[in-house]
Amino acid sequence: MQKTFYFKKNPPSIINTSAVVGPKESIGPLGKYFKHSIYDDTFGEKTYEKAECKMQSYVINRLLTENNLKTDDIDVLLSGDLLNQIISASFAVREYDIPFLGVYNACSTLTESLTIASIMVDSRLINKAICLTSSHFSTAERQYRYPLELGSTRPPQSQWTVTGAGGFLLGKTDKKLPKITMATVGKVVDFGVKDANNMGCAMAPAAVDTLLAHFNNTNTRETDYDLIITGDLGILGSRVFCDLMKQKGYDLTDKHVDCGGIIYEKNEKEFQGGSGAGCSAVVFSDYFYPKLIKKEYKKIIFMATGALLSTLSSQQGESIPSIAHLIVAEA
Amino acid sequence: MQKTFYFKKNPPSIINTSAVVGPKESIGPLGKYFKHSIYDDTFGEKTYEKAECKMQSYVINRLLTENNLKTDDIDVLLSGDLLNQIISASFAVREYDIPFLGVYNACSTLTESLTIASIMVDSRLINKAICLTSSHFSTAERQYRYPLELGSTRPPQSQWTVTGAGGFLLGKTDKKLPKITMATVGKVVDFGVKDANNMGCAMAPAAVDTLLAHFNNTNTRETDYDLIITGDLGILGSRVFCDLMKQKGYDLTDKHVDCGGIIYEKNEKEFQGGSGAGCSAVVFSDYFYPKLIKKEYKKIIFMATGALLSTLSSQQGESIPSIAHLIVAEA
Repeated sequence: MQKTFYFKKNPPSIINTSAVVGPKESIGPLGKYFKHSIYDDTFGEKTYEKAECKMQSYVINRLLTENNLKTDDIDVLLSGDLLNQIISASFAVREYDIPFLGVYNACSTLTESLTIASIMVDSRLINKAICLTSSHFSTAERQYRYPLELGSTRPPQSQWTVTGAGGFLLGKTDKKLPKITMATVGKVVDFGVKDANNMGCAMAPAAVDTLLAHFNNTNTRETDYDLIITGDLGILGSRVFCDLMKQKGYDLTDKHVDCGGIIYEKNEKEFQGGSGAGCSAVVFSDYFYPKLIKKEYKKIIFMATGALLSTLSSQQGESIPSIAHLIVAEA
Repeated sequence: MQKTFYFKKNPPSIINTSAVVGPKESIGPLGKYFKHSIYDDTFGEKTYEKAECKMQSYVINRLLTENNLKTDDIDVLLSGDLLNQIISASFAVREYDIPFLGVYNACSTLTESLTIASIMVDSRLINKAICLTSSHFSTAERQYRYPLELGSTRPPQSQWTVTGAGGFLLGKTDKKLPKITMATVGKVVDFGVKDANNMGCAMAPAAVDTLLAHFNNTNTRETDYDLIITGDLGILGSRVFCDLMKQKGYDLTDKHVDCGGIIYEKNEKEFQGGSGAGCSAVVFSDYFYPKLIKKEYKKIIFMATGALLSTLSSQQGESIPSIAHLIVAEA
């Protein structure tokens, strides 16, 4: 059964966030909200992988400099990404004198790391943590699908991996800042979806599972929150998610927004929106966090979802197990 | 700077451990200590990957049944492995109704997960956790090196990936049981080693870095511990590690044992001993944990080391960043 953690003693504040996005994201519907973008998706590096890694370093740098912090001020950095052996994270943090914990739950890596860091801050074992994740269209395509040079066509149910990295600086309770008050850790759910191009539908049941458990554990429902933000279910996956929730008696109309569903123009013929670990990280960082600061939202659920497949598991005929972790943030 | 956590309020007990090893490990020098072994390294499955996954399930089952626990009794399971997207972990836990946090720091994944779980128990947010990891010679060879069918020769500095999975059941303080009293989280260290066949030497500086930080943070030294156990530096890596520590004024002669160095016959001409995330997990579980129970050792350091490379990072000419996390266990 899923576990809900309550951060009552010392709920961690989200002190600041930072994100950097790629060219496509910077001209999308949320383009004006993204403070930092790159105009060349190699970021001046020789390979896309090095570019993704550099985006993570860039975010760490921004979080340190914008908050007048030295590496010594950060007790732990939790990070992960979609590349094999999470090399974007490991190679980015190598340049910093900061203790590192690598985490991986696919696109739910961000809320996983926020959960672990919140536990550490709440228990007063640490003062400050950075939680970070990234994805890159070109690194994901060639690792999970086909070489870009092939120019493969995309099926209509597919999503587009977001190029971007987003990071969160957590710290001790500060009444003026948004804080994380709860976290629900999901379990692995597998409804037998085998289409690696349809990850929204593979992940939707995991999102339902964690959200229902959260409502049940905390004795709350959708009306207790201003907004329920999911990570990257995409447009089709979001529809499945809302339908399944409706079957269970929860009406998410006007309550649910999917980061993957809003980062690009809604054009279902082309694809179902954004995906990738970086998707929810950049959208939450630069679009939703400022709204929490301005108290436009007072209490929200932020749930990132992850599809726990690998190319090898798909080749061996396996279905796609999925997971979702959520946090509750209050202004 | 590395961070040391002190578990003073409610130091977590290691309630039990369980491990399963492959055929080669079961006839090695520690064979008589391993309680469970498989005689066919496919474990009756169609692929080596499914076999590795099944080993993780096997260990979860043993931990549940031997301790009369239901899945509901486990608040969280932390697991990771060396396969791309940690599929052994994700697919194994899919069969259990247990909240899952995926972690990855290569072969230091085990001590990373023990650290996070200890924080959760110490802060009383959870009662029980399972920490788990695995590796498999045949899955690692074909993912990181060459297809087995090629029959490639191995250079003398190489190590042999252990086939095995080991798990740890942590719970609330119980005076009769060994407990985890401290944990030091390492940072990423890169001394520029580029030889992916010589991971012991790549990881040794990370081990030195974390151990020195631990001694410094806790104001202790080697003489304060009965034993300093490393994960899988191997024979050559251990020699480098001890030499570097000696240069810093610490004499680890008679104090240091490497899990990778004792799991196979010492035959340097063939290879430098065991490696893989499963190596330290099975050796600590079935060889060292019983000695803690019998109070043969009263206070030990257990430090697993990880080489944070991927095949792609090596192909792109990168060196091997490494990391080491340690825990202190007391009888």
